[in-house]
Amino acid sequence: MRFTFGTCSRHTVLNMYKQTCTNLLELSSAKVTEWLASFDSVITDCDGVLWVYGKAIEGSVEVMNTFKASGKKIFFCTNNSTKTRSELLKKGVELGFNITESGIISTAHATASYLKRRKFDKRVFVIGSDAITQELDAVGIRHTQIGPDPMKGSLADYMSQHLKLENDIGAVVVGFDEHFSFPKMMKAASYLNDPECLFVATNTDERFPMPNMIVPGSGSFVRAIQTCSEREPFIIGKPNPAICDALIKQRVIDPSRTLMIGDRANTDILLGYNCGFQTLLVGSGIHQLADVEQWKQSKNPEDKKLIPDVYLPKLGDLRPSLICKRSSSIH
Amino acid sequence: MRFTFGTCSRHTVLNMYKQTCTNLLELSSAKVTEWLASFDSVITDCDGVLWVYGKAIEGSVEVMNTFKASGKKIFFCTNNSTKTRSELLKKGVELGFNITESGIISTAHATASYLKRRKFDKRVFVIGSDAITQELDAVGIRHTQIGPDPMKGSLADYMSQHLKLENDIGAVVVGFDEHFSFPKMMKAASYLNDPECLFVATNTDERFPMPNMIVPGSGSFVRAIQTCSEREPFIIGKPNPAICDALIKQRVIDPSRTLMIGDRANTDILLGYNCGFQTLLVGSGIHQLADVEQWKQSKNPEDKKLIPDVYLPKLGDLRPSLICKRSSSIH
Repeated sequence: MRFTFGTCSRHTVLNMYKQTCTNLLELSSAKVTEWLASFDSVITDCDGVLWVYGKAIEGSVEVMNTFKASGKKIFFCTNNSTKTRSELLKKGVELGFNITESGIISTAHATASYLKRRKFDKRVFVIGSDAITQELDAVGIRHTQIGPDPMKGSLADYMSQHLKLENDIGAVVVGFDEHFSFPKMMKAASYLNDPECLFVATNTDERFPMPNMIVPGSGSFVRAIQTCSEREPFIIGKPNPAICDALIKQRVIDPSRTLMIGDRANTDILLGYNCGFQTLLVGSGIHQLADVEQWKQSKNPEDKKLIPDVYLPKLGDLRPSLICKRSSSIH
Repeated sequence: MRFTFGTCSRHTVLNMYKQTCTNLLELSSAKVTEWLASFDSVITDCDGVLWVYGKAIEGSVEVMNTFKASGKKIFFCTNNSTKTRSELLKKGVELGFNITESGIISTAHATASYLKRRKFDKRVFVIGSDAITQELDAVGIRHTQIGPDPMKGSLADYMSQHLKLENDIGAVVVGFDEHFSFPKMMKAASYLNDPECLFVATNTDERFPMPNMIVPGSGSFVRAIQTCSEREPFIIGKPNPAICDALIKQRVIDPSRTLMIGDRANTDILLGYNCGFQTLLVGSGIHQLADVEQWKQSKNPEDKKLIPDVYLPKLGDLRPSLICKRSSSIH
């Protein structure tokens, strides 16, 4: 059995819905088929698109696996710095996704790769989780330990007796850290006072709204360190195109025939904009059509970059189009 | 014995050195005398101008006391949120300054006054020190406790078992807090998710450089909370003119005949700019002449606001001019 998306895949007008936020549910089946044929590669965010609270979002497994079965290359791309590539792979496979480790783009892994490419040979001061330290270990880069580092005694006591700065720190990496604390801030700012010390942020997601509470995102730790260090970080994650650089440079993907799927416009959709990908916003996570409406009205040119090409309430809403396509293309 | 600053005090050309960063040491004695006669009130920053590491900076006591003895009104104005007005008064008096409590403008006190003026009657979630809670107590405003609030267990455990959000929180106040932690960030962001909840920052000083280390300032905590709450704070401290509002509205001072003295341009000098005061930058703290040179070259109009009218390496450098003046004006 072979899946195709019609016969027009090489003749499609590229990016026909450029930043129009066209709702795919309002298009004819023929138009959706035409759109499906306009990309060969799919890069998708995970939380809020594929799964939420550890459970697959209805229909996302079937859609992604059908994409893959039809010959499209698929990549999971997450700013979540608390998981290694192999942990993300395990999670994806357990939920039923047909994915391999080379299809996982994660900021913890990409941070370690970035330092390795720079031939970094000092130690890393890590504000983050063990996913970062494991990925650093995997490429042989030395680092400090993660976990609680609470304030000891008064500020004067801490400064005179407890604060120990190490000599061989050459980079400060900041990711998600539920043990973020004043001593960590003070150490990071002190290391970064040396202009030779690298400042790397896994990502800058601001926060994760949950029922009745808000979980701060890496972006809020990064902003704190930015402020007290008076330094600008190199940002590994979306929307920085660096995270897809290797795929593009090694011609694994053709940007104009790549679809970026996401639920957060200022990371996912902006990455798509920055890389020249087509973009699909799904409403199963952070941003909704009402947000897009605001950006359309905005006079800030930066807001315009957040407008996706197409929209769906959730990725699983593509199922009918794919099933229809699969039936019609089986000879 | 009566001190005056010559006979021209009411005829002086106002703000004759407007944003020229004129080095007073390079002026003739007559010109310095003319300048001294151009203001009746002096508002000065404390750390880095009057004292540093708990010790008075050479000459600052004599200069301030001479100002006062000559009839000028003097005010100490600090963004330091870790001291109450009475603690600051005690410190000033111990160091030899001739100052009274009404001459102390502090952000902990000003924050409590701000909430009181708004007839605030809920509880305040405080990220800060006991100076803030004492000033809130003094005006009868209820608040949460300050001190350590470390992460307990995993994030999932914390969210399900340990995080307790209170119902009657109506404001989040953020000042300097050496026990800043992830749970405090999460609580602040969750309270601020209610648009009715006020977000008040005592100040936004970024950091305090010390020998061999950097101490993060309130500004770095404020930026973290701004990011995860996606809210903008009302800022009490310098450079927000609100901190001098009462003095101006009650005609205690005449802005055009008021001198603002500071060592940090983006708080002290900018406050002077915002209030229409004359400004003196001293080089005994954060910013130096080299910084001013950068702002002069900058094309960013915001940087221009940081340029002081006049400059001195330290406040005590005014002593010779004052002694000379005192001698010549004693009849």
